[in-house]
Amino acid sequence: MASFVSTGKKIIAIGRNYVDHAKELNNAVPKEPFFFLKPTTSYVANRGKIEIPKGVVAHHEVELAVVIGKSGRDIPAHSAGAHVAGYALAIDMTARNVQDAVKKKGLPWSTAKGFDTFCPVSPFIPKTVIQDPHNLSLWLKINGQFKQKGTTADMIFQIPRLIEHISSIMTLEENDVILTGTPAGVGPLAAGDTLTAGLALPHNDETIAMLELS
Amino acid sequence: MASFVSTGKKIIAIGRNYVDHAKELNNAVPKEPFFFLKPTTSYVANRGKIEIPKGVVAHHEVELAVVIGKSGRDIPAHSAGAHVAGYALAIDMTARNVQDAVKKKGLPWSTAKGFDTFCPVSPFIPKTVIQDPHNLSLWLKINGQFKQKGTTADMIFQIPRLIEHISSIMTLEENDVILTGTPAGVGPLAAGDTLTAGLALPHNDETIAMLELS
Ligand SMILES: [Mg+2]
Ligand SMILES: [Mg+2]
Ligand SMILES: [Mg+2]
Repeated sequence: MASFVSTGKKIIAIGRNYVDHAKELNNAVPKEPFFFLKPTTSYVANRGKIEIPKGVVAHHEVELAVVIGKSGRDIPAHSAGAHVAGYALAIDMTARNVQDAVKKKGLPWSTAKGFDTFCPVSPFIPKTVIQDPHNLSLWLKINGQFKQKGTTADMIFQIPRLIEHISSIMTLEENDVILTGTPAGVGPLAAGDTLTAGLALPHNDETIAMLELS
Repeated sequence: MASFVSTGKKIIAIGRNYVDHAKELNNAVPKEPFFFLKPTTSYVANRGKIEIPKGVVAHHEVELAVVIGKSGRDIPAHSAGAHVAGYALAIDMTARNVQDAVKKKGLPWSTAKGFDTFCPVSPFIPKTVIQDPHNLSLWLKINGQFKQKGTTADMIFQIPRLIEHISSIMTLEENDVILTGTPAGVGPLAAGDTLTAGLALPHNDETIAMLELS
């Protein structure tokens, strides 16, 4: 399963799954989950480099990633857990100016979300390490300054519901990844900035995944 | 390469690449190519069945598919040919009512384009069979009646330009597929309908790929 980055075929990313983030971009809070696809060519490993294309305002969105372990279609929420192999920490990098432009025109988000290196991702975390994926701290710093600090307890739609929704449309396959949305605080990453992010258990703040990229 | 359906990771689909199709849906003719991603779980082979989800108006879009044979990033148009392994005939099935709704809201197209079985595809056609991919006939019939009849000569952006554009954003990998857009005549497929489609060489109308699905 540690090979999800090299063998996985889909990254399904949920939009607006935290109320405070939906509001900071003046978006409506969704009544049902929605998602977009990122290509797996956007993956970049920890300590890699995020390439910011010319003319792009690249925003960071720190997110809990769910790694699928068992294929399925029309998976009911109550049995979704059996399809999860584990987790990872990921950044859903977004060309915000491109996204703003295509949203106005009703065009797809694929370019805005799909550049190479726009999905930094940590090593695989087996699900045995995480008792409750809806009680984790998520944070992100730029140049050592906190920009995002949230808890997965604030997700509008929890993971079983996300799996039910996505798999009602498309088969989820082993090593597919679901990005579960970002808390508030998204903002630009500039050339030369250092981005660090972490995922932690809440009771003793034990860090279970870290990312550091420039 | 015949295994692109089982091993490929990306389907990159170009929107509005034929003037008459852009106009029939009251869309502007694009000044540069744009694309969306379909998941590879949407592939269905010839003689398979297209599942139309409840409440979905499923439109057919017959398209020439380009199968990538050699990975690349920032591929200039003049060397794009070396990255093409061959072709296929494909249908970009589209939940048109879902697409109309998300376009109005500035939301992603991923659900509208991404249902299982929404990418019927023919067997692989090696590029040696096709001397000029921009001089092929494309047609589609519903229950024996012509609905779409076009020529790839009418593409707004030709294949080398598409490869240059896409690979300026994301790495193209072996077995990735590019759907190159559809000519006019798109319309609904109803349960029980039979869909047939063909790709032909123009000089003697020799058919080089056929699809038949219900
Ligand atoms: Mg996001
Ligand atoms: Mg999209
Ligand atoms: Mg199409």
